This record gives sequence, structure tokens and C-alpha cells, in this order.
Amino acid sequence: MKNIVLLGSTGSIGTNTLDIVAKFPEQFRVVGLTAGTNDEKLEEQLRVFKPTAVALSDEAAAAKLRARCKGASVQILSGVEGVAQVARLPEADLVISAIVGGAGLVPTLAAIRARKNVALANKEPMVMAGKLMQEEARRHGVRIFPVDSEHSAIFQSMEGHRREDIRRLILTASGGPLWELTREQMQHVKPEQALRHPNWKMGAKITIDSATLMNKGLEVVEARWLFDIPPSQIEVLIHRESIVHSLVEYRDGSVIAQLGLPDMRTPISYAMNYPARMPLEPPPLDLAGIGKLTFFRPDHDRFPCLGFGYEALLTGGTMPATLNAANEIAVAAYLNHGIGFLRIGEVIQATMEAHSPRDVTSLEDALEADRWARTKAETLVRQCLS
Amino acid sequence: MKNIVLLGSTGSIGTNTLDIVAKFPEQFRVVGLTAGTNDEKLEEQLRVFKPTAVALSDEAAAAKLRARCKGASVQILSGVEGVAQVARLPEADLVISAIVGGAGLVPTLAAIRARKNVALANKEPMVMAGKLMQEEARRHGVRIFPVDSEHSAIFQSMEGHRREDIRRLILTASGGPLWELTREQMQHVKPEQALRHPNWKMGAKITIDSATLMNKGLEVVEARWLFDIPPSQIEVLIHRESIVHSLVEYRDGSVIAQLGLPDMRTPISYAMNYPARMPLEPPPLDLAGIGKLTFFRPDHDRFPCLGFGYEALLTGGTMPATLNAANEIAVAAYLNHGIGFLRIGEVIQATMEAHSPRDVTSLEDALEADRWARTKAETLVRQCLS
Repeated sequence: MKNIVLLGSTGSIGTNTLDIVAKFPEQFRVVGLTAGTNDEKLEEQLRVFKPTAVALSDEAAAAKLRARCKGASVQILSGVEGVAQVARLPEADLVISAIVGGAGLVPTLAAIRARKNVALANKEPMVMAGKLMQEEARRHGVRIFPVDSEHSAIFQSMEGHRREDIRRLILTASGGPLWELTREQMQHVKPEQALRHPNWKMGAKITIDSATLMNKGLEVVEARWLFDIPPSQIEVLIHRESIVHSLVEYRDGSVIAQLGLPDMRTPISYAMNYPARMPLEPPPLDLAGIGKLTFFRPDHDRFPCLGFGYEALLTGGTMPATLNAANEIAVAAYLNHGIGFLRIGEVIQATMEAHSPRDVTSLEDALEADRWARTKAETLVRQCLS
Repeated sequence: MKNIVLLGSTGSIGTNTLDIVAKFPEQFRVVGLTAGTNDEKLEEQLRVFKPTAVALSDEAAAAKLRARCKGASVQILSGVEGVAQVARLPEADLVISAIVGGAGLVPTLAAIRARKNVALANKEPMVMAGKLMQEEARRHGVRIFPVDSEHSAIFQSMEGHRREDIRRLILTASGGPLWELTREQMQHVKPEQALRHPNWKMGAKITIDSATLMNKGLEVVEARWLFDIPPSQIEVLIHRESIVHSLVEYRDGSVIAQLGLPDMRTPISYAMNYPARMPLEPPPLDLAGIGKLTFFRPDHDRFPCLGFGYEALLTGGTMPATLNAANEIAVAAYLNHGIGFLRIGEVIQATMEAHSPRDVTSLEDALEADRWARTKAETLVRQCLS
């Protein structure tokens, strides 16, 4: 029996994770759940899974939940510190970090420092402070298991092989919903269209990141730190069908890849139960039925955001955190305030250009860059709208 | 420094193996070489690699070689026992078994019984006596590493993962040079056409096996014994481009595959140097340049030989050895005596139907079935020609 804490339980990864727990109750016990603002969904979940403690980062939502759960044995915490406290629950064996965006950094680091193994579905902490995260993981003797489908694929393709034999990591990208469009056409893309991902059903933020290919740029940064591989050995390959989730090339010419139908329960369960696989028994992968798998080179002209990931790594220090924060602000502005689709990349680029990078030697360094970049990006967004 | 014996040094796998040894002389020393009849090529090889002993299974060829190598320090053996003696050389660490056809069985088993690890490029021993080979390997504490590209792919896709989690092995098949033809058209196919393999440069026998898909039928049998997986969990997938060399599906829906440009040096070197990979540094796999990978279901009506592998496994005992021997005779008759292409399958089927299978509890059981099937198949071939 493994005791798990699930950070971000009401999102797409969170609900998929709880599906797995519900299917294998003899293997997992949920001891902690956290969410942002969705007190109603969290309440449903806590009544089913009966955790020791839950937290909502939003104070008002937590107050509502407390009012409705009077007399229940669950401890209801709130705020950033409440979420971090759940991440540190003494009885937890594994913390699944599935919070969207930079908000995941503090509680994920709290889990690591409390000597919890982490299943990381939230790529932003690695982008903001990857080096620090890995140093802390080493210092506290814990492992970080990737949950992102591409990074899980890389991880699975490295298992049983020597890392000194690796030549390249090849991250696949579906190309997203706008792969066929010209820059001209992208200018006028509305959120409804950009949110229509061809293969994966995901949250809004990550789906827009797929449309700009920023998602892949962030994944390059994530891969760099997760696997300790320099960016010059990380490549991106467009693969429209999202069947080959990523590949690792070795120096003898052999390429190991992980494939599967798009189903997040596979990488989630692998991270939860590593090294054993869970009998999810989904339909077999019918490659003959699929017929063909196609591959293209990424197009940096139409999708400049991909390059930002490499640039941020090259500069190093606080630049990836800046990139990430600017992207979060720009995507939110696109979704909620109607800045043009191409403005997302422009806001990110201008924020990065205005940033004076410094080393990340502490959590505060990353958070400070994050705050600075949010403010800067918000200013730029206001200029777009005026 | 690893001391290797190479059985079948003058064939396609043999020369590829010696290329690797020549490139990495500090890692491998050739202590023994054997061939069938090609004394001239063996002489060239022994003058370059300076083994302790060599053997030619053909006595006349060995006599010629002895006459030319008077005074050389190499021991020149001959006949089946001579080849087996080289396979047992005390100083050998690894025996690479690359003899074509059933002739590989006796020396490969001799190597296993002399406690040598074996790199098996020769599928026929596993087809003829797979269960016995594995029992002997276990008893003598040695490992058998696959060299066939498909089996190496399966092996590489199993490394680091738990075998109890395996759901299916998926062997890929190029479909060979005649994949597009109707049965009607196949009737008139001449060896020149059947020998034109789209992706792999291999010996004549195995190339014809690819044209009939018998090669894949034999590989199913080989996989069954190499990996101890029942035939119901082994599938065949047509993949024209020969880039995905084979795949393993696990019970969580994850599929691990090994890919690469068709180059036998990759699986050979992996078997020679396991678990480390050798810096062959071939050109990177350019999937975007290749553009697409296609997959089809195998067609048992046009290619009945594929089914014979499954049937032989189902019957068990001496049936796979019978299948293999009948195929060798039929292929030789097609190449050298002009029986029709479709006769190959008919000769195999008639031989199998006429066979009364029994258990294989000793090498002699397999060899007796082999002899019986050769005689029977030769009779059938003569009937085709009369």
C-alpha cells in the first residue's frame, strides 16, 4: 500500500490519477489532496477518497469548503503554506505534483525537502528551478519521476540502458491545432480554435502552449534538468499522430522509443508504481489500423516559442523562470482578454529581452524572477490592449 | 578484452562482425573462426585476425587451406567436429553463431555446453531445438544474446522492464520484395526478383525466406524460445520501411520499440558488448527525412509460410525442426533447380503434414527429424521437377 498526496487533484492529471487509485484501492491510499479554487470538486473527491488533509490555495474557497465540511474528520488547510503542508504530510510515500503553472514550485520543493519521492506532472517547477530541484532531490535522497507523456517516454526508453551511451533525446510534438496555419492565419486565431487539440484532452493553459509550441520549448528545459542532458543533445520532432511519445538515440545507432495511444493514465501509473506496470489493459495499440506515422521537422519561423526554450537554457540562471512566467501571463491574456494569438510569443520575447538574468541559488531567486517577469509581461499585455 | 569465436565468419553477419572487431581491436580478440566451404575468404580473415584455430566444415576446402597455410601458427580443423571444437575453444568468452541454416545447431550447442555465452545470429538452432537450447543454457549458466535485428529489438525493448508486465511481442516484417504481388504473379517469380530485398542486404537463403515470409514464421518460433513467451502473445506486423525493428507491449498500454537504420552492426555489437553500447556513431536516424512509417496486417493467404511457424509451435516437439529442414531444401531447390516460387510453401506444408512429431529431449531427436524432413522434402522437390 502506497500513501499518496495529490497536488492539483481537480485538474486533468489529478482526476486521471484518482481514476487509477479508484481502480486499484488495494495499492494506493490517498492521504492528501490539494486544489486551487475548485472547492466543490475537491469536496466530492474528499468524500470518496477520505484523505487525512486537503488544502485549497484560494482562501475564500477554503472557507466555503470548511463551512460545508463541519464535523468531517479531514483537516482543511489553505493558502500556499497550506498546500505545502499537505505536500509534507508525514504519512505520504509519494507526492504527485499536478498543479498547473509556476504555482507548483513551492509545494513540490516542500515535498522534496520532506524526503518524498515526487511524480512530476507539472513541468513549470523544472523550468523555473530545474537545477535547484535536482540538487535538492539528490541532497534529500529522493527521486523525481516524470509524468508528462514525453518525459515518461524518455524515462522508459532510458531504463535498462546506460546513460553514457545516449546520443540524443528526441521529444515528439503533435504540432498542435495550428500546425497547418501560416503566420498570417495565426494572427486571427480565436481561443476556441486554439483549444481544439488534435490528440490530447488537456487543460486550457497547456493546450494553448501546444498551439504555440511553447509547451515543447518548456519540455526541452524540463528534459535538460530531469535527465541531466545538455540542450545540444535534445531535439524536437513533429509527429502529428502522438503515438510515438518520444525517443532516445544511443551511440550505436539504436533508438529506443515509447509508443501508445494517447492516455495519460499510462505515464501517471508508471510514475506511481515504478518499476512495476499496472494492469490498466487498455485496447492494444493497433499500428496496422493506424496505418502510418508521420514525422516533420519543427518550423521555428512559424513557431518561435519553441526556440525560446533553447534560448532560455543557453542564457541559464533566472531566464527559464522568466520565460515561464511571461508565457503564463501571455496565455491568460490571450484566453481572457483577447490579445492576438501571435502576441503570446511577442510578450514572452520582449520580457526575456528586458530581463537581466542572475543565478538561481535559492527558491527565492526563482520566485523573484517569476514575480518580476509577471509584472513585466502584464505591462506588455496592457500595451497590446491599449 | 573479450575473446571471441565466430562461427560462420565468411557470411554476411560474419564479415559485419569482423568489421566491428577491426574497428575496436582493444576490446575484442578473435580466437576462432569457422566457415563452410569458402577457404579463400577464411584464409584472408585468418591472416588479418590471427586466431588460434579455424575450421571449415567442408573437408576438401580444409585440405586446400592447410596446403596454403603450412608453417602458419593457426590450427586448421575440419568437419562438423572441427567446427564444434573451435566453438569450445577454452580461451573463448563469447561465441558468435552466424552459420546459415540447421548446420549451426551442433556447434552452437557445443559452445553452450562448454559454458560459453552465445550471440545467436543463426535462428535455425532455436527453431530446431529451442527448448533444449534454453534448458542447456540454464544448466550451464550461460546467456544467449539475440543478434537477429527483430530479436535484438525485442531484447532491447525488454531491458529495464519486468517480463511479467509483457502483454505482446510484436515482430515487424518488411514484407520482403514480393509484398505487392498476387499469388498468380508470385507463381512466376524468378530468383533474381525474389533476391531483391527492399531494405536489408543479406545472404541468399534468408532473402528468399523474407520473400516467402517464412523468415518471419521462423522468427516467431525463435522469439517463443528466446524470450519464453507463448505464441499467442507473439504477433507480426508488416512495416515496409524496416525502421521499427520490433516492439514490446506492456499491460499498462505502453509499447517500447527499438528503431534504427537497417545496419546489422548495431544488433551484432550490442550482443558482443552487452550491456554497453559501442560508439559506432552511424548517421543519426532522421525520421523527419524519412517522413512516414507505414504498417499493415500480415496477409496469411498470400504468404502461408508465416502461419507454418505458428502451426509448428502449436504441434511442438520435432515439428519446428521439420519445418526448418523442409524450408532449407525447398529454398535451395528454388534457387538452384528452378522449382516454382509457390512450390516452396507447398513442399514445406506437405513435409509437415507427412511428419509424425515426437518430443525433442536430445540433440539427436532434433537431428533425426531434420534428416527425415530433408529426405522427405527432397522427394517432394523431385516430384515438382518431374
